[in-house]
Amino acid sequence: MYGAGDVRVEDLPDPSLQAPTDAVVRVVRACVCGSDLHPFHSMPATDQGRPMGHEFVGVVEEVGSEVATLNRGDLVIAPFAWFDNTCEFCRQGLTTSCLHGGFFSETQAEAVRVPQADGTLVKAPVGEDSALLPSLPSLLTLSDVLITGHHAAVTAGVHAGTSVTVIGDGAVGLLAVMAAKRLGAEQIVLMGRHRARTDLGREFGATDVVAERGEEGVAAVRELTGGHGTHAVLECVGHMPAYEQAVGTVRAGGVISRVGVPQYEEAPVGFASLFGRNITLTGGPGAQRPYIEELLPDVLEGRIEPGRVFDRTVSLDQTPEGYRAMDRREALKVLVTP
Amino acid sequence: MYGAGDVRVEDLPDPSLQAPTDAVVRVVRACVCGSDLHPFHSMPATDQGRPMGHEFVGVVEEVGSEVATLNRGDLVIAPFAWFDNTCEFCRQGLTTSCLHGGFFSETQAEAVRVPQADGTLVKAPVGEDSALLPSLPSLLTLSDVLITGHHAAVTAGVHAGTSVTVIGDGAVGLLAVMAAKRLGAEQIVLMGRHRARTDLGREFGATDVVAERGEEGVAAVRELTGGHGTHAVLECVGHMPAYEQAVGTVRAGGVISRVGVPQYEEAPVGFASLFGRNITLTGGPGAQRPYIEELLPDVLEGRIEPGRVFDRTVSLDQTPEGYRAMDRREALKVLVTP
Repeated sequence: MYGAGDVRVEDLPDPSLQAPTDAVVRVVRACVCGSDLHPFHSMPATDQGRPMGHEFVGVVEEVGSEVATLNRGDLVIAPFAWFDNTCEFCRQGLTTSCLHGGFFSETQAEAVRVPQADGTLVKAPVGEDSALLPSLPSLLTLSDVLITGHHAAVTAGVHAGTSVTVIGDGAVGLLAVMAAKRLGAEQIVLMGRHRARTDLGREFGATDVVAERGEEGVAAVRELTGGHGTHAVLECVGHMPAYEQAVGTVRAGGVISRVGVPQYEEAPVGFASLFGRNITLTGGPGAQRPYIEELLPDVLEGRIEPGRVFDRTVSLDQTPEGYRAMDRREALKVLVTP
Repeated sequence: MYGAGDVRVEDLPDPSLQAPTDAVVRVVRACVCGSDLHPFHSMPATDQGRPMGHEFVGVVEEVGSEVATLNRGDLVIAPFAWFDNTCEFCRQGLTTSCLHGGFFSETQAEAVRVPQADGTLVKAPVGEDSALLPSLPSLLTLSDVLITGHHAAVTAGVHAGTSVTVIGDGAVGLLAVMAAKRLGAEQIVLMGRHRARTDLGREFGATDVVAERGEEGVAAVRELTGGHGTHAVLECVGHMPAYEQAVGTVRAGGVISRVGVPQYEEAPVGFASLFGRNITLTGGPGAQRPYIEELLPDVLEGRIEPGRVFDRTVSLDQTPEGYRAMDRREALKVLVTP
């Protein structure tokens, strides 16, 4: 990306092993993320450009001498962060805070160098050519959008009987609905105004849809919830109006979990917004390896089909068009097939 | 209070029953709260004045016709909020969000009208003249400072082995130390610079004391905690520098619980402060009735002595001097004996 609206496909040197804990993975499926649209809207024009993308499934091409658990030919899922899976933060399940980790930013490509490969990559127990290939889009959601929606639901404490508001009908919002449903939520109010998306949200488990935004949207959610709002609010957008909707729709004593990357640094948290009603604010990056391990069987055995969020497929060369389609809301989420 | 620094003692009409669910309680002990110092610093001068105080233990003088559980002569503890203890929020333990509740603001007085008396007042199983009278100061902390410190520790998820930073060496901070210790915290770092207070904090369970503030204070806490900060941070002040210290001392994946009433509305909550490290922000008013019921036996049986935070006693007429002594940090917490 060279600036807002300016995505180019270029030939770069092939990635290669740089550390004995690296792997090089050939990308089988990548995709465009809602968070990629933030720089697509606002990045200042540059001469240098920056590589893009942080989601992929792929096939291991080469491993460093200290990689013990992976072999050439393995089909692997990469979360959007890399980590050693052995440090004290990884051991408590917070792999996004690995002491030797980082975040991917170059996976809309033919191949990717993966640091800390043993820690980072989760092997799918299937071959690239196996009968399970139709599930590749669903496996790809384990790279970001499904685990991110799941993170929202988990950190918000969703359990059997919880009432939930999901803010945002992008892919993360819809999969937050799926995750909340999977964890037993009773009422799931989806706030979004794109009918095709909210219809999919209903299929994923939303019991109510609110198309209004701002104060009107808050009033509609309150009316659906006995006047009090919901125990959990999963904020899957990242802009201030979404935060304000979250404060308005959360029940006293409830939890707002944010997984949309905040496009602001300061926000209301004082007596009137959070403190007086004992509201908890939580969330953050959701690339926690245990989530992939927990959700993989449900994906492989077809109990959930998160890959349904992909509604357009482009080749790597067509990636710029994929950005534009998502930006114009013509596509919900774009799959990239190198 | 008629304005900053201007506290007067005046004769007002005796309180009387206004609803059949009311009680009138004669105040046996009241006190001055750190939060009373906020208007003492900043309240604009007025002709009207406002009554002050929200903490007391007392003896029931009169009950309304619908009050079922209290009788004249009962010694009762009043939390700083009143509530029916039957609504849906009260039933889940969040009595500060009672649908028919409110907050006290007139208890530095000889007597107080208590709405929703059955819900609000917790009867101490002792007579006013019993041998337990020496425990009255400790019982009084169940009105606010102990349950507030306990609320910080509970909402921060403190349990056996948790590492904790407590910000603030006022009465709430010191009792947050006590509460964290009681819940099994392993390391408790108390941030405060008043030696007599932090010494008491050590007696209550602090394992380390950090007198520095700001970046220096943050660095000192990190050095004490392997470079990473603590799982829980209990913010017992309410000013922005304390919030910033909380962000600096909390470990990735940890929890900041605020119980100092925020003197700000906006604060940093974006990627750099909370989101990127999956920090949870929680807390709020802690006048939850279940806490009083949980802590009362420990107080009555002497396993904890929270009343040690009172280091000065004044008569009701001397209340203005009590404010001044707390404001000048000559007194930690001032007991008022009408």
